[in-house]
Amino acid sequence: MPTGFIYTGIHVSNLERSIAFYTKVLGMRLLFKTNIKETGGRVAWLKSKNTKQYLELNWYPKGYKFGGKSGLDHLAFEVKNIDESYAQMTKKYRGAISPFPEGRWMLAYVKDPDGNWIELGQSVKKFKKRKQ
Amino acid sequence: MPTGFIYTGIHVSNLERSIAFYTKVLGMRLLFKTNIKETGGRVAWLKSKNTKQYLELNWYPKGYKFGGKSGLDHLAFEVKNIDESYAQMTKKYRGAISPFPEGRWMLAYVKDPDGNWIELGQSVKKFKKRKQ
Repeated sequence: MPTGFIYTGIHVSNLERSIAFYTKVLGMRLLFKTNIKETGGRVAWLKSKNTKQYLELNWYPKGYKFGGKSGLDHLAFEVKNIDESYAQMTKKYRGAISPFPEGRWMLAYVKDPDGNWIELGQSVKKFKKRKQ
Repeated sequence: MPTGFIYTGIHVSNLERSIAFYTKVLGMRLLFKTNIKETGGRVAWLKSKNTKQYLELNWYPKGYKFGGKSGLDHLAFEVKNIDESYAQMTKKYRGAISPFPEGRWMLAYVKDPDGNWIELGQSVKKFKKRKQ
């Protein structure tokens, strides 16, 4: 079972425009921006002032199969053992993408009962330790 | 400017089914459920284990104008002065619903650059104090 809900990811159609809105108008703090090799897209990570809530802005290139111009991209949960978690969850719920490496994380995706994407993540460091 | 991003609200088509998923499968804790007089809908509030992230599950009756069966409902931000915040934000960004009371909160809605709903909330207690 996941150890925690760690952030909400939403789709944006213009990363810089959305970063400006969430920082200058809504007062969030930009932590970092990075390219995502696996999708050809780009993401920005924001933290709230005064609360421990995080928001990820996800920009995808036109035509990318899981892309979108607005709305929810995914809800992210950290897990201790991604292979076990994915196997357990997909017994009953819809699996979508089995575990794969992305940068410093092992990620997998399942869907909630309405089809919303749930990201499961385990840090590669912890993953390698467990595999030894 | 908002004092903080306080939670993510998503649409669900069956509240009890989604509560079961987010608590039994993803390990979140149910804080409370309540009816929303203004929409005829019902919401559930969940908190993450180990992190300070909150999730609201929003169920709306069939045909409700702002309803939806999945995806993002809104991102919620707390503000100190809802009238001022709403006036300032709608100078440049799309306003949607001007401040109105809902239970213990004064709420208003604006839209982000991609049309995602942003909820602004000020507790009624703080609102009344300011108005005196």
